[in-house]
Amino acid sequence: MNMARETARLFDRMRERRPLVHHITNYVTVNDCANIAICAGAAPVMADATEEMDDMVAIAGALVLNIGTLNERLVSSMLQAGKRANEMDIPVVLDPVGVGATPYRTETAKMLLDKLEVSVLKGNAGEVATLAGSEAKVVGVDSREVSGDLLTICEEYAVLSGCNVAMTGPQDFVSDGTRSYMVENGDDMMEMVSGTGCMASTLVGAMVSGKEDALAETAAALAAFGLAGEHGARSAQGPMSFKTALFDGLQALKVTELAAGARVTRL
Amino acid sequence: MNMARETARLFDRMRERRPLVHHITNYVTVNDCANIAICAGAAPVMADATEEMDDMVAIAGALVLNIGTLNERLVSSMLQAGKRANEMDIPVVLDPVGVGATPYRTETAKMLLDKLEVSVLKGNAGEVATLAGSEAKVVGVDSREVSGDLLTICEEYAVLSGCNVAMTGPQDFVSDGTRSYMVENGDDMMEMVSGTGCMASTLVGAMVSGKEDALAETAAALAAFGLAGEHGARSAQGPMSFKTALFDGLQALKVTELAAGARVTRL
Amino acid sequence: MNMARETARLFDRMRERRPLVHHITNYVTVNDCANIAICAGAAPVMADATEEMDDMVAIAGALVLNIGTLNERLVSSMLQAGKRANEMDIPVVLDPVGVGATPYRTETAKMLLDKLEVSVLKGNAGEVATLAGSEAKVVGVDSREVSGDLLTICEEYAVLSGCNVAMTGPQDFVSDGTRSYMVENGDDMMEMVSGTGCMASTLVGAMVSGKEDALAETAAALAAFGLAGEHGARSAQGPMSFKTALFDGLQALKVTELAAGARVTRL
Repeated sequence: MNMARETARLFDRMRERRPLVHHITNYVTVNDCANIAICAGAAPVMADATEEMDDMVAIAGALVLNIGTLNERLVSSMLQAGKRANEMDIPVVLDPVGVGATPYRTETAKMLLDKLEVSVLKGNAGEVATLAGSEAKVVGVDSREVSGDLLTICEEYAVLSGCNVAMTGPQDFVSDGTRSYMVENGDDMMEMVSGTGCMASTLVGAMVSGKEDALAETAAALAAFGLAGEHGARSAQGPMSFKTALFDGLQALKVTELAAGARVTRL
Repeated sequence: MNMARETARLFDRMRERRPLVHHITNYVTVNDCANIAICAGAAPVMADATEEMDDMVAIAGALVLNIGTLNERLVSSMLQAGKRANEMDIPVVLDPVGVGATPYRTETAKMLLDKLEVSVLKGNAGEVATLAGSEAKVVGVDSREVSGDLLTICEEYAVLSGCNVAMTGPQDFVSDGTRSYMVENGDDMMEMVSGTGCMASTLVGAMVSGKEDALAETAAALAAFGLAGEHGARSAQGPMSFKTALFDGLQALKVTELAAGARVTRL
Repeated sequence: MNMARETARLFDRMRERRPLVHHITNYVTVNDCANIAICAGAAPVMADATEEMDDMVAIAGALVLNIGTLNERLVSSMLQAGKRANEMDIPVVLDPVGVGATPYRTETAKMLLDKLEVSVLKGNAGEVATLAGSEAKVVGVDSREVSGDLLTICEEYAVLSGCNVAMTGPQDFVSDGTRSYMVENGDDMMEMVSGTGCMASTLVGAMVSGKEDALAETAAALAAFGLAGEHGARSAQGPMSFKTALFDGLQALKVTELAAGARVTRL
């Protein structure tokens, strides 16, 4: 299969669906998640009160859980939302932001993975390696430093966790343990903008709402986002004008451009 | 009366007052509300702790309540702030974000409308229609789809609620039940940016702090915002560069441009 | 000592350290704080749950406490984080946003100053004057109006509080009571963007993580930020394009430009 064309097809389908992506996420990058959803062609909703959780999840196409600014109240909401999504067969994406930086984050991510059926676990190399129990060195919530073979860590953790695992970095790896993709789109500038990881999770949520092929949909999300980043980098004067161009670029991204520019490889 | 010139006059007065607009709002678009207030010529404040609510409301020119990301703690704060504002004759604007998406939102909005004297209820067509009990179809918090005659819904709900009602969309309607305005400024691009509805409520708050004519002030807020959007759309490459231009455009908006470009019609 | 060159040297050292700056801050400008840290060459982390506070502080180079949107839960977290930082000799920066607007803010800021060893207290003139007990007139959280001699207020409050005090405005003053600097970089446009004060505190945190000379490091933070503002203003069309250019400008700021353009004077 031509994965670039498949990526373009899956992205186009997502735009046709205009899926509602429900987020329980951090207050640092939440606005970026909302806007990137719109620019992608999806619709965002952010709600975290237990009082409305069952109702809000019920109308969503996907649920994105992001532990960037955790607290007890949010953890309860995430559990409730995740259970509701599982009952209704609504795909759940977990972004374990900063796992490894503190035991609280690590334990919370593991608890969520234990109690919920997570369709896609999406983290950077350090985060995934931490959850996988690798000898990962993680500093803060932004570090991507990790030792070891990334693809192997990704594949093995997909088997152990039972999730589709997406591990982002200069090259992204996506694996369910038996099938794996590498995505090579992107630009270094993306690491200079707070929240690109969170935005990627939003896009994964939008894509896997298709429930066609979560692995290929996840790879397509990362490829489209990376390609928008490549386009954005052309006109950028620095990180913040790049950020503007990234959003604009995703909104303007044509299916034909994706079919030509998506660098998704079956491994 | 020449409504465009009246709009310009009211907007100019607001800039002279530089009103402090107190917000209890959602964490998704709160930064946009702060910056749009500054660009308009007002001053924003965001505070939601009950410990300081009475004091903060007391120094404000208007109070904006936005239920975008509700929780129990915020609801208590909104009630306390609204009562204080009512006691002190400070205008209250309610933006019932996402009403209809979940019963919790609908009940909370109705409770606030019941317990507080709301000067202006500002929502999109779906939100207002939901509160009015019309057969509205609302999907998520962003939908504006609704059936029925919008002006009639707006007028009737103004009578039933006792509020000035502003119903935004491709055309905005503002009514107190007996007097109504239509505002035709704006650009389609505004729907591609998260938070334009919230920003409009901030501007309504800034304007009605004048306590001169809440209905005309509300129409003027929507006209000025829409005209800034029209100006912004000229230079935009996409949703996010449009957003930048929208803020810049509002800050640069001249009284003479508003007098020439405001499309406010008495119905 | 040539303070411009010293400013450049200290800023360069900070970039080499790439310090992790831990924030407990408000939800209005938190994204700006994250991005300005990255643009400066530091790494941001935002976390406010008591469950992870001791662990997160332990890996940080500095702690920034910002009371912009206070509540009881955040106050507990700030106390815990501050005590942990003090134990570990990690510099603490306090930004008393809106002090004077409500007794809750004033009392909370004073309590934090009483219970914690704050390395740098950074506020605008009105905020510092309020804490100093001067006859300051403060309206809302953004006002910088204050009467009296600013340098004297700054110096005296440095003695009384035992902190390094940074008082921002058209001219910034930084003092430990015996030694004082004036920083004259900046652009009027910075007051048209919500959160420039919060961002300055982030930069102060990044700089004082060096633990070389907190006073000179604070002055250097304000000079670098102001110079980035001067550069940004050249290309700005209005407040929001200025904001983009401010971030880009800080990221692009060369050590040689800082050595040439920093306007830091020993008083």
